[in-house]
Order: sequence, then structure tokens, then C-alpha cells
Amino acid sequence: MTTVRTRPMPTTRDRILDAAERLLARFGYKKTTMEDIAREAGLGKRTLYLHFASKEAVALSTIDRIVDRLTGQLREVAAAVGPPEERLREMLLRRVLVRFDSVRHYSHSLDELFESLRPAYMARRARYFAAEAQVVADLLAEGRRLGAFACDDPEATAHTLLLATNSLLPYSLTARELGKREDVKQKALQIADLLLAGLRPRQTAPNPREKSS
Amino acid sequence: MTTVRTRPMPTTRDRILDAAERLLARFGYKKTTMEDIAREAGLGKRTLYLHFASKEAVALSTIDRIVDRLTGQLREVAAAVGPPEERLREMLLRRVLVRFDSVRHYSHSLDELFESLRPAYMARRARYFAAEAQVVADLLAEGRRLGAFACDDPEATAHTLLLATNSLLPYSLTARELGKREDVKQKALQIADLLLAGLRPRQTAPNPREKSS
Repeated sequence: MTTVRTRPMPTTRDRILDAAERLLARFGYKKTTMEDIAREAGLGKRTLYLHFASKEAVALSTIDRIVDRLTGQLREVAAAVGPPEERLREMLLRRVLVRFDSVRHYSHSLDELFESLRPAYMARRARYFAAEAQVVADLLAEGRRLGAFACDDPEATAHTLLLATNSLLPYSLTARELGKREDVKQKALQIADLLLAGLRPRQTAPNPREKSS
Repeated sequence: MTTVRTRPMPTTRDRILDAAERLLARFGYKKTTMEDIAREAGLGKRTLYLHFASKEAVALSTIDRIVDRLTGQLREVAAAVGPPEERLREMLLRRVLVRFDSVRHYSHSLDELFESLRPAYMARRARYFAAEAQVVADLLAEGRRLGAFACDDPEATAHTLLLATNSLLPYSLTARELGKREDVKQKALQIADLLLAGLRPRQTAPNPREKSS
């Protein structure tokens, strides 16, 4: 898990997924065939089927790979030096922008991809978020020890933070919104800032709900 | 807009939408035909087509109606008596649960509905959120005057609050999640509480980012 690996020649699996991403972006899900993917990857169809049982499996694996790479990046940010609040802001921003950058060139074909994959995509979402939540929860626990966060339950709070930024993931963006990276970035920062303000410990400011109504 | 109306006999339009909701929940989008909708509503097919040009138009209008009713409820909550923070929490909860309750009996057929409607649904989402944001922004402005919220830009903050709770709207829920109302409610409350904590004015607590790193 934590062993350092140099990046060698791409594996056959990565070559297939790279080829699939190019075709999905250019022609969309429906018009792309397994035959096209094999040709684009420079492989025989039989080799392709040794790695993936179906076009749906290939397409879902391209999403898996994006989330795997993202989770790796989140771990790096979590392990970096700096105030926990800054690291958490960076993580929330990163989870939005890494996904955005991975599919922004899909443009209109993304709608069709999610239309086709929706049930299967929804089914594996929980696994994606669990992996991310683990990294966020660890940082929240660290920040709590350092007095940077007021947070009773790091795991529950981690899920809350992810949920609150999920509406900016590609699945929830229109083709038009995918064209506007800066807009999406600003929205992510605004949500992150409000959430971070909510996590900041209050030493002296009274809670108005406890005072009066 | 603000005139009070007693609810008379349902209009033909409402009868059609009621019939469509029953069929969409029971049989799903693909298996439901315009003929079925006309029969279920007790109308001729010609009358149905006088009101709606296509099955897609009917289905989208059932979603429009849910959002219109919700927006009405949000206005009522905004106009109620009580601390702005409580009203805002109730509004955020309500926007999640009113939608949830409107489609929870769709169960598995909801996946198929959104699969079929995705492009058209995405296109009109902006209009839904603009209507909700207007009501939320007005409450934020009121709360700011009363000293209940720290909020520089009520309109931008309203959009941020909606975005941060959008991941709990039916479009983003799986069939399994639609079965668990209490879970969804708790998640909505957790997000709302964190956002509300972020909006609470800080009179004396220092911002750690300004102090040191």
C-alpha cells in the first residue's frame, strides 16, 4: 500500500484504459465498441477480453482509476506539512478538480456516459467515498488533537464533508458547467470555506441558539 | 404570485400529472406510454396531447411540480416566526425531504427515470435552484440584519448552501438510499449543522489562519 513505486512502462490494463478514455471523450459511450478499444490500444480483441468482460467494465474501470489516483493524491496532501485547515481545504478542492480535469474534455459525451452507466455507477459510488472518507477522517482526527478542528466524530464528519462537496463531481455537472473550470473551483472553495468555518473551534463566541430565541 | 388560493377541484393538468406519477412509480418511465397516462387520468389521448407534447414533457412536469410545491413551502418557512438559524435549518432539511417523500415510492424505477431524462433534467436544474436560492438569500439577508448570520453576500451564500445539500436530492440517491428516510434526514441535518456553524458570527474567537501556521 505505502511502498514507493517508480512508474514503469504502462501495463496492458493502463493502455486499455487510456485508449478507452480517448474514445469515450471523442465518440461517446454508445458509439464506442470493444473492437474500437482493442484497435486504439494496439491489442487483439482476445487480449482485451482477457482484461475486461464488457464495454461497461472498461468504462467503469476508467472511473475507478480516476478515483484511485485521486485517493493517492489525497493521502499525499494529508501527509504534507502545514495547518490542518489548509490541508483539508486542499483535499476538498482536489477531490472536485482532479475528477473535473479527468473528464472535462468529454464535454457532451459525459452526459451520455452517465446516462448509460447510471445504475452501475451508483452502485460503486459508496466504495469511492469510503476510500476518500478514510483519508479525510484521519486528517480530522489529527486536526482535533492539534486543536485546529472542533469535531466530535471524525468519521461522520468526513462523510459530511464529502457529501457537501459531492454536488460538484462530474456526475452532477452539466456539459456547460464542465466548460467552466474556474466557476467550479470557486464554488468548491466557497463550500469548503463555509464548512471549515463550521469546524473551527469556538473558544469564547456564544452560540446564539443557547442564549435566546 | 403571493395571492392565497384555496385548493379547488384538481385541474386537468394536475390530474394528468397525478396519473403520470402513479404510473412512473409503478411501471417506470420506459414501460409507460402516453396512452397509459391518458387512460389512468380518465382522459382521451387527444386531451392529453393538448396539455403535453410528449411523455418526456409529462415526466419533466411532474418534477417541476414537486419543485414548485417545495418552493412554496420554503417561502412559508422563511416567513414563519423564530430565529433565522432555525428557519434556515428547516429550509435545508425541507428541500431534501420534500423531494425525497415525493419519489421514495418510485424505488428502482427512479434510476431508470433519471437515466432516460438526464440531459433534459440537467438542463432545467439551474431554474429549480434559482427559485430556491431566491428564498434562501432573502432569509440570509434578514438574518444578517438581525446579527444571526455572518454572511457577506446572501445570494452567493444561498447558492453555496444549496450546492452543499444537492448531493442528497433524489437524482443523486440510489434506490437503496431511497429506502432509508431517516439516514437521509440525519445526513441533511449534519450538513446543515456544519454549514450553520460556519455562518454563525464570531465575536471574539480568533481565526487560527490569521494567527500562525
